[in-house]
Amino acid sequence: MPFIVDKIDDRTKARLGTLQTAHGTVKTPVFMDVGTCGTVKALEPRDLKEARAQVVLGNTYHLMLRPGASVLEASRGLHSFMGWDGPILTDSGGFQVFSLAKNRKLTPEGCRFNSHIDGHEFFLGPKESMAMQRVIGSDIAMVFDECLPYPCERDRAEKSVEQTLKWAAECRAQERAPGQLVFGIVQGGVYDDLRRHCAEELVKMDFDGYAIGGVSVGEPEEEMYRAVDASVPYLPEEKPRYVMGLGVMHQMAECVARGVDMFDCVLPTRIARHGTAITRRGNVAIKAAKWIYDQSPVEEGCDCYCCRNFTRSYVRHLLSCGEILGLRLLTIHNVYALNRFMEDMRAAIAEGTFFEFKEQIKKDTKSK
Amino acid sequence: MPFIVDKIDDRTKARLGTLQTAHGTVKTPVFMDVGTCGTVKALEPRDLKEARAQVVLGNTYHLMLRPGASVLEASRGLHSFMGWDGPILTDSGGFQVFSLAKNRKLTPEGCRFNSHIDGHEFFLGPKESMAMQRVIGSDIAMVFDECLPYPCERDRAEKSVEQTLKWAAECRAQERAPGQLVFGIVQGGVYDDLRRHCAEELVKMDFDGYAIGGVSVGEPEEEMYRAVDASVPYLPEEKPRYVMGLGVMHQMAECVARGVDMFDCVLPTRIARHGTAITRRGNVAIKAAKWIYDQSPVEEGCDCYCCRNFTRSYVRHLLSCGEILGLRLLTIHNVYALNRFMEDMRAAIAEGTFFEFKEQIKKDTKSK
Repeated sequence: MPFIVDKIDDRTKARLGTLQTAHGTVKTPVFMDVGTCGTVKALEPRDLKEARAQVVLGNTYHLMLRPGASVLEASRGLHSFMGWDGPILTDSGGFQVFSLAKNRKLTPEGCRFNSHIDGHEFFLGPKESMAMQRVIGSDIAMVFDECLPYPCERDRAEKSVEQTLKWAAECRAQERAPGQLVFGIVQGGVYDDLRRHCAEELVKMDFDGYAIGGVSVGEPEEEMYRAVDASVPYLPEEKPRYVMGLGVMHQMAECVARGVDMFDCVLPTRIARHGTAITRRGNVAIKAAKWIYDQSPVEEGCDCYCCRNFTRSYVRHLLSCGEILGLRLLTIHNVYALNRFMEDMRAAIAEGTFFEFKEQIKKDTKSK
Repeated sequence: MPFIVDKIDDRTKARLGTLQTAHGTVKTPVFMDVGTCGTVKALEPRDLKEARAQVVLGNTYHLMLRPGASVLEASRGLHSFMGWDGPILTDSGGFQVFSLAKNRKLTPEGCRFNSHIDGHEFFLGPKESMAMQRVIGSDIAMVFDECLPYPCERDRAEKSVEQTLKWAAECRAQERAPGQLVFGIVQGGVYDDLRRHCAEELVKMDFDGYAIGGVSVGEPEEEMYRAVDASVPYLPEEKPRYVMGLGVMHQMAECVARGVDMFDCVLPTRIARHGTAITRRGNVAIKAAKWIYDQSPVEEGCDCYCCRNFTRSYVRHLLSCGEILGLRLLTIHNVYALNRFMEDMRAAIAEGTFFEFKEQIKKDTKSK
């Protein structure tokens, strides 16, 4: 069994787990750091280790376009290409095909499209996605699915779920990289019965884990929790659950309380590049003029490399000069901040104080 | 005595030296890494240590504009601001005032100008430059001078040298940061007698070291060596000699053969950001398509962090995606490459094989 539930919280559905992959063990709940094109932007593997990252997420769509399958094959997969020896999860590419690619032409076999970078034509369907994820050699592959927009009409959602289920079955049947786990993805938009139907059908196919997709796509926060609540009860206890595209502290805590184990998001690295730090007291715009003389670290009490060595005054200066080091230092902080947050969350579950932990982070960070 | 000549080569004027500064000892010949705005671009202090950097160069002009004297005062100088505890050398700002600043108005007291960034008005002369370098707290300060363009008429050069000498005397009389050394700068363009005159007058003022300025400003290579040859004989044996703005391997070796001890240049970090690697076999455009599948490191035999861990294929991919990590890895390599080159040069002087070393690097890298 690759996934073991080590403890379930008394007052919520939160759980502590251990996920065994071909490249090491993952402690859950876990936040996974997004490395779109074979690098978590501005960081190298040793930075990720130092920032306590457990899993790097690679984007199949981006890696298919650049460097392409032949380069990754020549390098014997993404692990050795990027020098990361820990676990890698890959998405299926579906989300980017439907949001980034141009001239999409959808067929029952997948989607023909032009690269958003140079217009080159590609085709991505369940078979192609799994083949690409096999070349990448990820430890966890995701099935090829259609991520519904918000809002979405019932009729469209129904058809899409059927397509997603067909593709899931095809993905399930494909050859895998050695030791590769494959996760199904529950879609269904805001329709509880569609979520249930999708979850139940996927569970029949027996995946190694299950994601809840189509959340954090612009819907109100309550709709997001509702989609989770509509899916989790129909997923097996003994398999990991993953909410895709979520990286806000109190939202992750709320989802963990609902039985979710895994998250990913570009947020920590993206907002770092825009000069914003994630802290336990909410986000802080370090670029702001008010920090010009500030001799305190980006986050008081944080022991990341940035906070141990530099002041807000210095980081603000770097950002205002457009210096690469500024966004690199903030990226180091933000990645560490979320990984440490998950560590503390796991400790709270272990100690039986998760509910208080969740309420506290909501109080301290929400609407800030 | 802050500078000790440990050995002079038999066949050339090359020398091994030890320069004592308030923040540690520098082994010469040395290449100094340029950290314009309080960071060697894309690198943090631990990277510099790992890349065997000895001295960081700060630009007084840039630091005066951003973050400005008041911020550096609040941070107790540049060392603690940027977290670098090794030696720092600052230029005087003269070169940038005369090349970057807008609406320059020159007076005998210095130069009024508008910032090239936001148009703010500043004044920089010998007093202001030394005051700013005192606030920065550099270990080695440079006198405020006028760097002559190439070509430059005799008449203009003569007047400029007189101005530079007056300013040098004024700089010499200013208060210093604790333990700060001050270097004079020999100007005089391509006129040997002006170089000699300038050197002799500066030596009378008794500086801690002497730079040869106004070289590597677009003149033919032979003119550059001529300017060095016209200056060195009139500088004291027991003081360090510094050619400003030079960072090409065979050119540094030629200058070392002429008795020069110190160099600096933006080249290694700037060309890294444009995708070019410095190697012992000449520069290599890592961005080039021909490296797409190349599984060798950026430089065979190099043991920098980049070469130990990544392939040309990977670095090329990062550069072609515009990923920050690509230019960061090449910056790490290039800084290491030059620092290691200087180490090997020092070893060659120590072993009595410097002449052969110099001829070899010329053969291996020139016109490549």
